[in-house]
Amino acid sequence: MLPALHCPAVHTAESLAREISQWRADGHTIGFVPTMGALHEGHIALVLKAMEVCDRVVVSIFVNPTQFAAHEDLGTYPRTLEADSALLAAAGCHLLYAPSVEEVYPDGFATTVSVEGPAIGLESDARPHFFAGVASVVARLFGQVRPDIAVFGEKDYQQLMVVRRMVSDLALPVTVLGVETKREADGLALSSRNVYLSPAERMRAGRLNVILRDLAHALEDGEPAARALEHARILAASVFDAVDYIEVRDADRLEIVGEGPLARPARVLAAVRVGKTRLIDNVPANPARRG
Amino acid sequence: MLPALHCPAVHTAESLAREISQWRADGHTIGFVPTMGALHEGHIALVLKAMEVCDRVVVSIFVNPTQFAAHEDLGTYPRTLEADSALLAAAGCHLLYAPSVEEVYPDGFATTVSVEGPAIGLESDARPHFFAGVASVVARLFGQVRPDIAVFGEKDYQQLMVVRRMVSDLALPVTVLGVETKREADGLALSSRNVYLSPAERMRAGRLNVILRDLAHALEDGEPAARALEHARILAASVFDAVDYIEVRDADRLEIVGEGPLARPARVLAAVRVGKTRLIDNVPANPARRG
Repeated sequence: MLPALHCPAVHTAESLAREISQWRADGHTIGFVPTMGALHEGHIALVLKAMEVCDRVVVSIFVNPTQFAAHEDLGTYPRTLEADSALLAAAGCHLLYAPSVEEVYPDGFATTVSVEGPAIGLESDARPHFFAGVASVVARLFGQVRPDIAVFGEKDYQQLMVVRRMVSDLALPVTVLGVETKREADGLALSSRNVYLSPAERMRAGRLNVILRDLAHALEDGEPAARALEHARILAASVFDAVDYIEVRDADRLEIVGEGPLARPARVLAAVRVGKTRLIDNVPANPARRG
Repeated sequence: MLPALHCPAVHTAESLAREISQWRADGHTIGFVPTMGALHEGHIALVLKAMEVCDRVVVSIFVNPTQFAAHEDLGTYPRTLEADSALLAAAGCHLLYAPSVEEVYPDGFATTVSVEGPAIGLESDARPHFFAGVASVVARLFGQVRPDIAVFGEKDYQQLMVVRRMVSDLALPVTVLGVETKREADGLALSSRNVYLSPAERMRAGRLNVILRDLAHALEDGEPAARALEHARILAASVFDAVDYIEVRDADRLEIVGEGPLARPARVLAAVRVGKTRLIDNVPANPARRG
């Protein structure tokens, strides 16, 4: 058996800056994929996209405490650094940045980046401090890595829109790319939290994407949003232990859309609970398909 | 009479970016002085410092609405763009960036940068949203200008510390320089708001710096902070129409210092009211002078 590969790694902003400076001196463009580890095929798709568009790629692994609420799974969030490093090496990633909490939040750290607009509602209803945690750590990591391009998954669609908004508002010199969600055969979006699901829960979890796709198709066929949503919500309530939200939003700014047929490209987004696990997913819905 | 000079000016982020790119292509370093206009000798000292340390200097003039509270002087804040441009031209400033409110805050703008630590207390007690307004606009302007060095006055010492904290926390690629406060002969710190003072108020205003210097000397002579502060507060209350605060803080993080003699470099900071005008000032106090 061959020994597991390891991706070259740094653990401090200082070591990271040395690598980045060398790459800059060599004229390389830099891609960046921020993650919380527990990597799966969905993350690797982001890394491969970054490698496609940049000369050098940095992946960060940092389980960011400021985006977890007190009752959430910070303590038990899967941490699989050895396996993650092997996956990144196999994908050809150039550098793993795995800082400690003290490295990211040193003594005296005092800055929060908060976003309204796309961050209002949806995930924020259940997790009011989530996007401030995300935006702040992403801004700091962008400052440390200084990438040309950063890649995020559409799985966390609201997060992608929040990061785009922040980058635009702070005029940060980085291009944000979104990558389509990777799914299991039954449609379940890949997620590090899927490991929490029992076999029976796993069966039910697959229904979320089916319900969202059916909802999107109904909207694309011209059904009024209010009626299509009501149908999807009733169905979801019968399958899941709780439905945090199922909503139709404007695809770009995540503004609430009207109750009638779609007028602009939209996104259908949902969060549901299966046992103790919270699942999120989203799919596009375009009015263009009609007629 | 010679025609008044004018500083080359741009009014949009796009025009600004074109100038900046050309300078970068020519290998120039870039200095930046963000202001709200109504320029005086204090601002010009910042511009001259920037010109001393950088090849090209941009000064922004933008009266930032988000750092004014509803009852404050946004509407009447002095706007003197022609005179400002002439002063900047005389100082040799390379570019004036004077954006509109819509240019800085376009439709959909949704991001706030807030800082705790050095922003807690002092100015924040009277102006709770002030530093979030400052930090957010400075972050955006830094993103648009992308300077190597940004220069701020020590007159707004707490603001200087808040900007330093934000730059450090967001790992922004800019060095922040502070420049000593310019004063009138009687010690009054130059300020765009001094134009509001009547002749009688102007006489009283000069006492603020004298009281702060005496307080700093007492601390430097080893007097316990609590006693020296009590003396200064009684004196100030007899001179001014209100004393918002007189405080001694750690010079670096603006943490509250103990009641005894100074143990570390400190800063003495105050805000008082003379008629309808609010004055702020600060001076250093170093324990080293003792013994």
